[in-house]
Parts: sequence; structure tokens; C-alpha cells
Amino acid sequence: MKAVGVVVEYNPFHNGHLFHLQQAKEQSGADIAIAAMSGNFLQRGEPALVSKWARTKMALDAGVDIVFELPYRFATQHAEIFAEGAVSILTEAGCDTLCFGSESGDLEAFRQTVRFLEANNDLFQEKIRFYAAEGNSYPKSIALAFQSLAPSESFIDISKPNNILGMHYIQAMLRQESQMTAQTITRKSAGYHDEHFASATISSATSIRRALFGASGEMEAIRQYVPDSTYRQLISYKEEFGGFHSWENYWPFLKYRLLQSTPEELNEFYEVEEGLENRLLAAAAAANSFQQFMESIKTKRYTWTRLQRVCLHILTNTRKDQMKTAKYKVDYLRLLGASEKGRAYLNIRKKDLSLPLVSKLSAFSHPDLTLDTRAARIYALSQNGSGQEKLLAEEFAQPPIMLKS
Amino acid sequence: MKAVGVVVEYNPFHNGHLFHLQQAKEQSGADIAIAAMSGNFLQRGEPALVSKWARTKMALDAGVDIVFELPYRFATQHAEIFAEGAVSILTEAGCDTLCFGSESGDLEAFRQTVRFLEANNDLFQEKIRFYAAEGNSYPKSIALAFQSLAPSESFIDISKPNNILGMHYIQAMLRQESQMTAQTITRKSAGYHDEHFASATISSATSIRRALFGASGEMEAIRQYVPDSTYRQLISYKEEFGGFHSWENYWPFLKYRLLQSTPEELNEFYEVEEGLENRLLAAAAAANSFQQFMESIKTKRYTWTRLQRVCLHILTNTRKDQMKTAKYKVDYLRLLGASEKGRAYLNIRKKDLSLPLVSKLSAFSHPDLTLDTRAARIYALSQNGSGQEKLLAEEFAQPPIMLKS
Repeated sequence: MKAVGVVVEYNPFHNGHLFHLQQAKEQSGADIAIAAMSGNFLQRGEPALVSKWARTKMALDAGVDIVFELPYRFATQHAEIFAEGAVSILTEAGCDTLCFGSESGDLEAFRQTVRFLEANNDLFQEKIRFYAAEGNSYPKSIALAFQSLAPSESFIDISKPNNILGMHYIQAMLRQESQMTAQTITRKSAGYHDEHFASATISSATSIRRALFGASGEMEAIRQYVPDSTYRQLISYKEEFGGFHSWENYWPFLKYRLLQSTPEELNEFYEVEEGLENRLLAAAAAANSFQQFMESIKTKRYTWTRLQRVCLHILTNTRKDQMKTAKYKVDYLRLLGASEKGRAYLNIRKKDLSLPLVSKLSAFSHPDLTLDTRAARIYALSQNGSGQEKLLAEEFAQPPIMLKS
Repeated sequence: MKAVGVVVEYNPFHNGHLFHLQQAKEQSGADIAIAAMSGNFLQRGEPALVSKWARTKMALDAGVDIVFELPYRFATQHAEIFAEGAVSILTEAGCDTLCFGSESGDLEAFRQTVRFLEANNDLFQEKIRFYAAEGNSYPKSIALAFQSLAPSESFIDISKPNNILGMHYIQAMLRQESQMTAQTITRKSAGYHDEHFASATISSATSIRRALFGASGEMEAIRQYVPDSTYRQLISYKEEFGGFHSWENYWPFLKYRLLQSTPEELNEFYEVEEGLENRLLAAAAAANSFQQFMESIKTKRYTWTRLQRVCLHILTNTRKDQMKTAKYKVDYLRLLGASEKGRAYLNIRKKDLSLPLVSKLSAFSHPDLTLDTRAARIYALSQNGSGQEKLLAEEFAQPPIMLKS
């Protein structure tokens, strides 16, 4: 059986994801699709709208055959580490192809860019440091450094978020000597960050989330942008667990955690850089919402995403010493769900796996998994008592989701 | 001017406190009364019903002339350290007499008991360890050890909470070579722990708090047990800050703090003993209220009070290394409020003070004060946004409360 791998967050699963998934299977000629999916907290340092289990259901319903969890250790990181973790999962899972969406859509342009940057790496790094020292954010510094190297027109535009991720997938595949071949599909219509609906059926996850957090009547407004299964999942999630998850739900906890910390303690959290700790403390005492807090700590030096990740690591008590060790590959595959075809594939593949396949939490322990279960416990705290219990039962007591065909 | 000192929590101020205060002034012949009062968190490991500022107002209205804060460092501790801190405040403040309420009411019995225990200290300590090793709580072990020494009938009954405190005041005065003389008044009617109203005008603070957390109509039920000023303060506090403070308000924060901790981290908190950390973690995940949590961690080995103090230190992020150093005296006097007479007294006394008198937070810094301000920030988190702001303004921006006559 041929397998194609995709790296996803599905927050929530929408028609753009469906298009990518179908194209990935078609263009690669794969029998099954395997997803490496972020868990309850995402790359931009945010809680997912709905739990990883609800998003796994959406993925399976839409035609993904196997969903593995990209651990917190990788999922909540900048593009390079995020990509390395995801590539290691899909490689270990035996995918023949990795298919990613990008603004460019031109695989040769990705390859040329990667080769060019490797050949000019010292100069590139030096220029990044130069622009960062001028007070620019890290992504901005990368874009400026790249520009200053006078790149050829046949390169990708690395100021685009999906191009950056794609470039890191290719780099990770080279570094890990992955046997997968790469494939890219031009993203349809909506930009990653678009906040407004821009097409008749394809919309960004950002604008869908915006609508979901609006008045409850607005649920209807997203219907045309998501598969029926997603729509039903979202409605039943809201009923079952008492609402969607957003940073505002966790703000009281973050504020409390900040107010009880000394500057020295804050400095131990992952991604908290020298000087940021006092800013965080002063802002926390004065702010009455997450939005207000973020606006008061935002500077040119840090992107919103970077600051959200800082907040997330404080919320989950994630320290530098737990994250800073150089590590580029996962140590286990945690199965969140599979279709019947997916299960058949896993039965064959099992004997060739070099890593443990984890479907029961009680049967395996690992520091990365401890981060994930802690994140799951904290993720559940935004809901009421019975919502918490249901979320924790999904995480700790239930087996992976098995789609019946 | 002659001053009498009292050690209080006033949670809330009631007629029993009023009786004690009046007797203290009368029997000591003092011109003014000075109180060493716990701040926002109390000796039994609980949040005070209303803030230290509201309680200071109640105290001044009832005839206390000066209120100093007993720092968190001493206020949230077992009787010995609590007493040492309080005695050091009243001594430094120049009190001539310390007047405490007790079940015994017989000062000579206190003196004899203290002398007897000092003469037999080695044997006493050995017997305490023996009973503790049998799985008894610390207070229970003390009581059993004392009993086993076949005490004379002229000693106090040290199984009674106010007798224990009184004994520690006398010990602390000896140890600190305080120039104060001791005086004790038999407590009227209601026992410390009584949960039901037992007399026409005197009731325990415990039963008053019970009524206050009942249906809102029950406010009326406490009216006969508290001075008018207290009654008005309580009603206006409820309106202004959105409610009274109870452990249940802080339960979401405690639960969150527990769930994000490893057993090793929990072990760093003050009063967390080996073996307790895993019990705490398991119970936190399953509990949906503070009451439920406490019931599931309670054993014969630990008193409810002791466990509440453990919870409090976790809630406020108070570590062993911040509390474990042997220290029996305060390093500063923090003024919470004064009457006109109290201010006149302070103006005279000022030049003889050996410790800083703190009335403005911005003008002084000390690790013990940092614990207090952190506790104040966390105490405020139970209220809504505007309630939080008002509480923090009282703590950080406003001068001490000055009663006008």
C-alpha cells in the first residue's frame, strides 16, 4: 500500500483542507493518507478550537486514514522544529510522499531555495543576526536577510507562512535522510491569515474561528466552508463540552500563574528571553483579558505568534531545560485514530516500525508524552466540571478513534 | 500613654471580639489598643472572608487604635511561629500588656504549664515523636504526649486551641525577653470551632461565616452577633467586590497549579511532606471542588488545618527555601490603619522604634513583604475585574486607613 503524508492542525477541518487532502491522494497515487496533527495546542501558541479527538474525527470523516499526534514538544515550536517533528513521524510511518500546501506550488523553486541557502548559510545567518539586532522580529529578520542576498526569481517567497513551512519540510527531509519524496500543491484562494470570507466555499481557518466565536447565530455562516461532518462535530462539541476553546478561557490561569511568579522563575520558562519577564509581570497585573495583555506586551521585536508561544509555555509550566535539548525526531508514534484501511496498513507496517506505537497511555511513558498529558489536563480546565471529565476520559481512558466504514 | 496588645484575625469582627477588646483595655488600664492582625490569608490556611483593609476598618470602628499586619511569613503558620511573629510586633510597638483570650482564663496555670514543659522538654519532644510515628497528627501528638506526662490539675488543657496559642505567646515573650506583661481573659460562650449559634449575642466566627455563605437572606441572621459597623462593612463589601472570599473561589487556580506540577515541584512547596505530593496530584485530577479535594486527601496523619496550609502555600507559590529559615521576629511593622489616638501614640513612639514603620509599599522592600503583596494579588483574583482593581488599589496605592474621631 502506498501512503501519502500531510502535516496538519485542522483547526477546524474545512473545505480547503479537503481539497488539499484529495489532491494529495490523487497526485501521489497513494492508497491511504496519514496525518501528523498538532494536539490540543497549536504552532501559533494557541489552544485548538476543539480537542485533538474531535479534530481526529473530522479528519477521519474527510478521508484521512491514520492520525498521529505531533507532540507538544514539536507542535508548539517555530517552523523548523515543527517541521522536523512532523517529517520524522511521516517518515517512520512509512509514507512514500509528503504533500504540503504552499503559496508557491513549485517544488523546484523550493529545492533551489534550500540549496541556495545552504551554500550561503554563514552569510545568511550573519545577516539574520544583523537585522534581529536592529530590533526586528525573527521572521522579519529572516525575510530581510533573504532579500538582501538578492535571491533569484526562481526562488520561493519566504515571507509567506506556508512557503516557510514547506522549505523546512524539505530541509528536514534532507537532514533526516528521509526516503519520502516531496510534493506541493498551491493553496486555493484564502490566505493563511485572512480574517474575512473570501471565496464561496474555501475560507481560512482564521475567519472560520472568528465566526465561531461571534454570536451563536453565526454558526450557520460557516456552513458553506466546512464539510458536513465538521459542521456537525462543531455543533455537538459546543453542546457536549460547553463551548469552544480560546485563549480568553485560559487568561485567568495565565494571569494567576504570572502573578505568583518572580522574574527569576519566569525566566526559566521556555522562550522567555532576558528582559521580557518584567514586561510580562507589569502587564499581567494591569490586564483584564488576554487580548489586552497581548496588546500591552507586543513590540516590534516579537511577533504575536512568538508571544503567544511564550504565554503557552508559562500556562503549561514548560521550562527551558525540558525543551532546549537539540532533538529533531519523535521517539514514539501516538495514534489518535484510524480508518479501516488505516488499520490494515498499520497491521502490515507494525513489524517495520523502529519506534513504539502508542495507543494506550497507561502502557507507555516518555518525557514528551508527559508534556502532552499535562497540556491535555490544562486544556480541559477551560470547560465546566462535566466537560473536564469528558475531555480527560477521552485523553486517558479511551482507545484511539476507529472509524468504521 | 499605656498600650495593650491583642493578636487577632477578625474574620469577621464580632461581639466576642468586642467583649475581649473592651476587657483588655479595662483590665490593663491601657489608653490605647494595638492589634497584630493576619492579612488576607489566615492561620488555618484559609482566605479571609473580606480583605485586611475591610477588617482593619471593622477593628478601628470597634475601638482598636492601631492595626499592624502580621506578615504571611508568620500568619499562615502553626501556633508557635504565629505567636512569635505576633509577640515581636506588639513588643516592638511598645505595648505594656499582651492580652489574649483563652479557654482557661488562668494566667498562673499558663505559667506553670510553660515551666513544666520546659523542665521536661526532652521527654516531651520524645513522646511527641512517638505519637506522631504512630500516625497521629501533630496537634494530636502534642496533646497525647502532654497527657502521658501526667500533668497536674493546675495546668491548662492544651487540647484547646486558644490555650495552645496563649501558651505560645508566653513562651515567645520569654524567648524574646519581651518587656510586656501577659494577661488572659476567659473566652465567652462560643467555642472556637463551633458551627452553630450558641448564645444570644456571642457566636463563633466559624458559625458567622457559615451563615454568610448561605442563602443571601441569611445576612440578617448574623446581625445580632456583630457590631453594626461590621454588619454594614460586610454588606458593602459584598456589593463593592462581588462577594466574600472562600477557598472554593480559589479552587480553579489551585487545581490548575497542581495539575501543571510534577511531584518533584510539589515537594518544593512549604509544608509538603514526602509522600503527600502524589496524593495531592491524584486527588486534584479527580476533584471538582475544594471540599471534595480536601476530603479526598484527608487522613488521620494530617489535620484539616495543616492540609489547608499546604494548599495555601501551593496556591501562593511559597517554597520551603522562603519559609524554612529559623526566624522568630518581624523585620518591619506594616501599618494598616490607626485612630486619632493611635496616630498620636505612633508620633511619640516613632523615635524609639528599632524597625522600619511601613505605611507606603513603594518606599520599602523586603522578602517578607514580597510574600504579602504576592498573596494580596492572588487574593484579589477571586473577584471580577473591577473588584480586582479595587482590591489592588487598596493594597498598592492607598495609604493606611485613618479613622477620624
